[in-house]
Amino acid sequence: MTKATPLRLGIAGLGTVGKGVVKIVRQQAQLLSARAGRDVVITAVCARDQTRDRGVSLAGYAWETDAVALAKRDDVDVFVELIGGDTGPAKDAVEAALAAGKDVVTANKALLAHHGQVLAETAEAAGSVIRYEAAVAGGIPVIKSLLEGLAGNEITRLMGVMNGTCNYILTNMEKSGRGYNALFDECAELGYLEADPNLDVGGIDAGHKLALLASIAFGTRVDFASVELEGIQRIELQDIKHAADMGFKIKLLGVTQMTGRGLEQRMTPCLVPDTSALSQLDGGTNMVVIEGNNVEQIVLRGPGAGMGPTASAVMGDVMDIARGIRIPTFGIPATQLQDAPSAVAASPAPFYLRVGLHDKPGAMAKVASILGNAGISIDRMRQLGHADETAPVLFVTHKCMRQALDQAIEAINKTDVVATSPVALRIEIL
Amino acid sequence: MTKATPLRLGIAGLGTVGKGVVKIVRQQAQLLSARAGRDVVITAVCARDQTRDRGVSLAGYAWETDAVALAKRDDVDVFVELIGGDTGPAKDAVEAALAAGKDVVTANKALLAHHGQVLAETAEAAGSVIRYEAAVAGGIPVIKSLLEGLAGNEITRLMGVMNGTCNYILTNMEKSGRGYNALFDECAELGYLEADPNLDVGGIDAGHKLALLASIAFGTRVDFASVELEGIQRIELQDIKHAADMGFKIKLLGVTQMTGRGLEQRMTPCLVPDTSALSQLDGGTNMVVIEGNNVEQIVLRGPGAGMGPTASAVMGDVMDIARGIRIPTFGIPATQLQDAPSAVAASPAPFYLRVGLHDKPGAMAKVASILGNAGISIDRMRQLGHADETAPVLFVTHKCMRQALDQAIEAINKTDVVATSPVALRIEIL
Repeated sequence: MTKATPLRLGIAGLGTVGKGVVKIVRQQAQLLSARAGRDVVITAVCARDQTRDRGVSLAGYAWETDAVALAKRDDVDVFVELIGGDTGPAKDAVEAALAAGKDVVTANKALLAHHGQVLAETAEAAGSVIRYEAAVAGGIPVIKSLLEGLAGNEITRLMGVMNGTCNYILTNMEKSGRGYNALFDECAELGYLEADPNLDVGGIDAGHKLALLASIAFGTRVDFASVELEGIQRIELQDIKHAADMGFKIKLLGVTQMTGRGLEQRMTPCLVPDTSALSQLDGGTNMVVIEGNNVEQIVLRGPGAGMGPTASAVMGDVMDIARGIRIPTFGIPATQLQDAPSAVAASPAPFYLRVGLHDKPGAMAKVASILGNAGISIDRMRQLGHADETAPVLFVTHKCMRQALDQAIEAINKTDVVATSPVALRIEIL
Repeated sequence: MTKATPLRLGIAGLGTVGKGVVKIVRQQAQLLSARAGRDVVITAVCARDQTRDRGVSLAGYAWETDAVALAKRDDVDVFVELIGGDTGPAKDAVEAALAAGKDVVTANKALLAHHGQVLAETAEAAGSVIRYEAAVAGGIPVIKSLLEGLAGNEITRLMGVMNGTCNYILTNMEKSGRGYNALFDECAELGYLEADPNLDVGGIDAGHKLALLASIAFGTRVDFASVELEGIQRIELQDIKHAADMGFKIKLLGVTQMTGRGLEQRMTPCLVPDTSALSQLDGGTNMVVIEGNNVEQIVLRGPGAGMGPTASAVMGDVMDIARGIRIPTFGIPATQLQDAPSAVAASPAPFYLRVGLHDKPGAMAKVASILGNAGISIDRMRQLGHADETAPVLFVTHKCMRQALDQAIEAINKTDVVATSPVALRIEIL
């Protein structure tokens, strides 16, 4: 049998993931070749500092200092973008690669969440593909499962815990009894935080991922701007404890579904029942739950980050291209993706509400009456013991709309009884 | 844009899964067409009884009574085999389809476990593909994940609970306190059992699935004959209870890994820690755990059977073919698959051993000494209270080889103290 021509990769970015990809291509060359029916080789790489010892051999690779130059090289078939960031060199180089007729593999959720539509249209017009398994949920083949494996389904709902850093903080607050700030600092030391930590703890990174999955699931244009985003910064140890007392855990949970009013996309901290699969995720593990009209429910779990898992996802995409798999970026041609109206907070839910009140007569009644006036009925209410002058009061509401609750919170904040502004967390019954 | 030619399916077998496939193709035609970039249509179907009302419209489809005739039709591009069985019409028709240059999608694990190598060689020589996502773990896209998503990994171990009927029996023995026979009868009434129930409760069906996954994972020829098989028929309510007391659940667990001595494949009832993900599976749910050198560990969970989930898997394969995805049956060309030596019971483990002894002095000592002579050391031993003349005695061994234990059991059975032959269950520490 004559062998097909090798598939030639240009790797831009030699951080953790880039090094992992180099390792796999070098150390598993024979296995990749057998599976792809052709050799998979690296011809050129690019990073800022050529002199640094990265612990992997780069022998035999051409070196570029400019990612755009790498993207344009004649000896590169697939441009592998592992630089990161939604602007700057990552974007320039991906555009250059597509303009030069290359295929692109990327781990860059921010880039695709902001520019996915345009990039997909460009790629598809040129007959190129963009693959991005590594952009969502690390090593879990969730894009492939959704885009291909479940292609016979109308997707009804997709949920997921997709930021390992947030999950690390939340699960370790519970396990170790340390507060948010201590665990945030620990994550910084462990290198678990993005350069801008708000990408992690503000839910933005996970929101990027959700927006990409929503596009595939519902055939809609990526619409990150409409994701209802809320970070975990205001979660306190006492919230974790109160949730546990009620049989719940707190997770930064993404949910997307097509409703009668439009596309719902939210990435917010939620209380989930501690018997649910989602609640049992520890540390950096990710989980995605996909529900379809035929398949019922599929649950996928695995490491959400790290050199090996993320490089595994990059190589899954590379191998697909090596094997000739060519599918539109979001499953249907980008020009056919729909502009769905955004349905923010479209579905009612019970909420957990913690508010710190000045310890004086009538304070609790005032808050309760504001909730009542907003049409929010209270399922449970409890004032907790306290050492200082602020009394923490918990409410669990019956099902209500988030907008109504937010209006009530605004009114509560205007009273003279509030010491700390309310923390409101959705209770997601799975 | 001019539209590509439609992909034309011939559906052989109109049982539960076949009806599900017809439903999807009819009711989701537009979605399938958008995703595939071409229409996906059924041109002909085949089943024994044309007059039966199946609750789905078959209008517009040609009818064949002979599956081979269906497979050969000029207006069929993909032969969808949903007849079942490793011989007879299913095999004849798949062979005829391949001979006629068609692609094949099948849910038939038995056929591929027995004849996968020859069929794959035939298909690949003719440039056809065989896809079989529905053959393993129902709606879970496990074949796709292993074959494609994790193609950048050397697979180190694969485990799974892949027979919903066995899992239904075992989890309901625990929940309801009813015995094996009562639940077996319930499964028969519910239609959960294969025509030959031993395929389910004997572990054969799950063994077929494991053999297919092992081939993909390790690049080896399908070798069902070497799967170490053990059914769940001898599990008693007391075993479930004793296991629970020790912090375990009993699952029919498949494990395959490449060892220094060859390919290990086993499908046997095991005790798994009740904190593990595998232990938390209820009823008909399946779970597959895939471990790779880069990805670490991925866990996939979903419905293992049923009309919707299985039809979803069939349609995933159909959509792949419609989109031009063509990969060798087992990931590398069938002619390159290796003949791995079989390593039966290659790895030592602790075992749970229950034996019914005649209630007379020295009985327990006799058994313990046979174990000792076989080099099997005992971690825990307990004689339980009993109403009749047979005393149930439990042993938990330290790690030992299954062969040594089997020899000891043989010796134990030859003594005059045994009332019921020992039940030995591997304890799998995950």
